[in-house]
Amino acid sequence: MESTPVKALALVCSLNPSPARSSSQLLAEQVMAALGEHGVRGEVIRVADHDVRPGVQVDMGDGDAWPGIREKILAADILVLSTPIWLGHPSSIAQRVLERLDAELSETDDEGRLLTYGKVAAVCVVGNEDGAHKVSADLFQGLNDVGFSLAPGAVAYWVGEAMQGTDYQDLDKTPDAVASAMKTLAANSAHLAYHLRTTPYPAT
Amino acid sequence: MESTPVKALALVCSLNPSPARSSSQLLAEQVMAALGEHGVRGEVIRVADHDVRPGVQVDMGDGDAWPGIREKILAADILVLSTPIWLGHPSSIAQRVLERLDAELSETDDEGRLLTYGKVAAVCVVGNEDGAHKVSADLFQGLNDVGFSLAPGAVAYWVGEAMQGTDYQDLDKTPDAVASAMKTLAANSAHLAYHLRTTPYPAT
Amino acid sequence: MESTPVKALALVCSLNPSPARSSSQLLAEQVMAALGEHGVRGEVIRVADHDVRPGVQVDMGDGDAWPGIREKILAADILVLSTPIWLGHPSSIAQRVLERLDAELSETDDEGRLLTYGKVAAVCVVGNEDGAHKVSADLFQGLNDVGFSLAPGAVAYWVGEAMQGTDYQDLDKTPDAVASAMKTLAANSAHLAYHLRTTPYPAT
Amino acid sequence: MESTPVKALALVCSLNPSPARSSSQLLAEQVMAALGEHGVRGEVIRVADHDVRPGVQVDMGDGDAWPGIREKILAADILVLSTPIWLGHPSSIAQRVLERLDAELSETDDEGRLLTYGKVAAVCVVGNEDGAHKVSADLFQGLNDVGFSLAPGAVAYWVGEAMQGTDYQDLDKTPDAVASAMKTLAANSAHLAYHLRTTPYPAT
Repeated sequence: MESTPVKALALVCSLNPSPARSSSQLLAEQVMAALGEHGVRGEVIRVADHDVRPGVQVDMGDGDAWPGIREKILAADILVLSTPIWLGHPSSIAQRVLERLDAELSETDDEGRLLTYGKVAAVCVVGNEDGAHKVSADLFQGLNDVGFSLAPGAVAYWVGEAMQGTDYQDLDKTPDAVASAMKTLAANSAHLAYHLRTTPYPAT
Repeated sequence: MESTPVKALALVCSLNPSPARSSSQLLAEQVMAALGEHGVRGEVIRVADHDVRPGVQVDMGDGDAWPGIREKILAADILVLSTPIWLGHPSSIAQRVLERLDAELSETDDEGRLLTYGKVAAVCVVGNEDGAHKVSADLFQGLNDVGFSLAPGAVAYWVGEAMQGTDYQDLDKTPDAVASAMKTLAANSAHLAYHLRTTPYPAT
Repeated sequence: MESTPVKALALVCSLNPSPARSSSQLLAEQVMAALGEHGVRGEVIRVADHDVRPGVQVDMGDGDAWPGIREKILAADILVLSTPIWLGHPSSIAQRVLERLDAELSETDDEGRLLTYGKVAAVCVVGNEDGAHKVSADLFQGLNDVGFSLAPGAVAYWVGEAMQGTDYQDLDKTPDAVASAMKTLAANSAHLAYHLRTTPYPAT
Repeated sequence: MESTPVKALALVCSLNPSPARSSSQLLAEQVMAALGEHGVRGEVIRVADHDVRPGVQVDMGDGDAWPGIREKILAADILVLSTPIWLGHPSSIAQRVLERLDAELSETDDEGRLLTYGKVAAVCVVGNEDGAHKVSADLFQGLNDVGFSLAPGAVAYWVGEAMQGTDYQDLDKTPDAVASAMKTLAANSAHLAYHLRTTPYPAT
C-alpha cells in the first residue's frame, strides 16, 4: 500500500536507565514486534538514557536531549508511550514526556494543523498490582490533547493481583490476554496510521 | 463521498431530565451543529429522560430504556458523550452510560470485531470551575476500551474560574476558544468517521 | 474513653440490589467487623436497595430515599464508601452518593462548620483486575472536598491479575494483604474518629 | 499547647528552578503564612533547585538530594505539596516526589508504624485553566497511601477560565475564595497535626 513503511517510535518511561532490566521496555518491545507483523518498522528509546530536561518548550537548551527525540517522533507515524505504574500513576518520566509534548500545541504546519496530526498514539502500561486503566486514561487524554489519534484498544497492559510483587518481566510466559491485547492494538493502530498518512485531517 | 450521510448520536448526561435547562445539552447541541457543517446528521438524547437501568448487560429487562438507545448508537458513526462535572468527575449518568457500554465487550460481528469498531467517539464536558481534563480522560479511556476511535482534539469543554458559579448556558456568548475547539472536534471526528466507514479495521 | 460507642455507616455501591451477592458488600462487612474490634458499632446499607434520586440537593423530593440515608451519615462518626470498579471507575452509584454529598457544602452548624467535619471517611474498592488506586483517589478527593478527614491507609481493596475474571467473593480465603489493610484502616480510622469527636475542628 | 511549635514543610514542584517566578511557590508561601497564624513554623523548598534523582529508594546515591529533603519531611508535622498542573496532571516533579515517598512504605518505627504516620498532608494546586480536583485526587491518594492523614479541605487551588492564559501570580489580588480555602486548610491541618503529635495512631 505504501512505498515507505509506516514507522513507530516507542518511548520507554522506566525510572531506570539501561542496562537495568525493565518491564515497560519489554512490553514496548513486544508491541513493536506485534506492529512489525503489519509492516511497521520502528525504534525503542529508553527516555532515562537521555538527558531530557524538565520544561514545556520544544528545546530547553543546554544539552537538552528532547529535540533529538522529538525529531524521531515527528518522523514517526505511531508513538508508543510505555510506562510503569508508580503509586497508581504514570511515571514521572512519562509525565515529563507529556510536558515536553505540550510544546506541540504551538507548532503548526502551513495549513494550521498541529505537527502531531496524522499520528497515532498507543500506550503500554505495566505494574505489579494496579493502575493500568487510570494510567491509560491520563496518557490517552494527554496525547489526544496534543494531537494524536487513538485506534480502538489503544492500550496493552499487565498488572498482577492486589499487593503482589512479581514483575511482568519475571513471568514465565506472556499471558494470553496480554498477547491478544497487543495483537489488537497493533492491527488497529497500524490500520489507522496507514490511513492518516494517505488522507490527512483537513485544515481548520 | 458517501450516499448516506454520516450519523452522530449525542447522549447528554445531565442529572436533570427535560425540560430543565442544561449546559451539557447546550454544548452537545453546539457540537452537533458543528458536525452538521461536515454533512453529519444526528440526534441528541438526554439520558435522564429515559429509564436507563443500572447494570452491565445489553438489556437489563423490565422496561429498561437502554436497548432503544443502544440501537441508535449502533446505527451511528459518531457517539458524542456530553457530561456535566460533579465533584470533579463525570456525572453518575455518564458513568452509567459507560457501564452499559461495557456490555459491548461481549458483542462481536462475524469477523470477531466489536460492534463499536469503526465508530468515533467525542466528548463534551462542562462545569462551573474545574475538571474537564480529568473527565475527558475518564471518558476517553472508557470509550476507547469498548471499541471507539478518537480523532485529535476529541473534547470540547468549558469551565469557569476556580470556585465561581456561572453556568455555561448563562454566558453572554460562546467563548471563542470553545467555538474553536468545537470546530476542530467536528472536522477531525467527521473525517475519521468517513474513513472508518469505508475502510474498517481488520478482523483479528 | 466514650460513653456512647463510635458509629460507622457503610454505603455499598454495587450496581445490584439485594439479595444478589456482592463483593463490595462483602468487603464492607469485613471492614465493619475490623472496626468492631475497636469498639465501633455500625450498619451496612446497600444503596441500590433504596430509591436514591439523581441530583445535588439534600432532598430531591418525590419519595427520594437519600434524606433517610443522610440522617444515618450525620449520626455516624465514620463513613465507609464501598464500590465495585467499572471500566476503571467508581460505580455510577458511588458517584451518585458523591453527588448527593455535594449538598453538604451548603450545610453548616452554628459556627460555620460543615456538618461532615469531625467525621472520618474510609473506602473499600473491589474489582476483577484493575482500578483500585484511581477509584480511591476519586473517592478520597470527593469525600475530603465535602468535609471528611482521612486516616492513613484509608482504603481496603482487592483486584485480581490483569483481565482475569474471578470475583473477590469467590476467593477461597481473604488474602493476607487485604486482611492486613483492613486492620490498618480500622485501627487508624477508629483512632481518628475518637479524637475528632472529643476535639472538633475549630470554627473558621 | 505545645512547647515546640508544629512544623510544616512545603515542597514546591514547579518545573522551573529559582529564581524564576512560580505560581505554585506563591501559593505554597501563602498557605505557609496561613499556617503561621496557627503557630505553625515552616520552610518552603523548591524541589527543582535540588538534584532529586529518579527512583523509589530512600537514597539513590551519587549526590542524590532527596535524603536531605526527606530528613526535613521526617522532622515536620505537616507536608504541603504544591504543584502546577500540566496537561491536567501533577507536574513530573510532583510525581517524582511521590515516587521517592514510595520508599516510606518500607520504613517503620519500633512499633511497626510508618514514619509518616502522625503527619498531616495538604496540597496546593495551580494552573491556568483546569485540573485542580484531579491533581488533588492523585496527590491525596498517593500521600494517604504512604501514611499521611488529611484534614477536611486539604487543598487550596486556583485555575482560571477554560483555555485562558493568566497565571495565578499575575492576578491583581488573591481571590477571596482562594484566601478562604487557605484559611480552612490551615486551621484544619494545624488542628489535626497538633492532635496526632500528642496522640499517635496505635501500633498494629
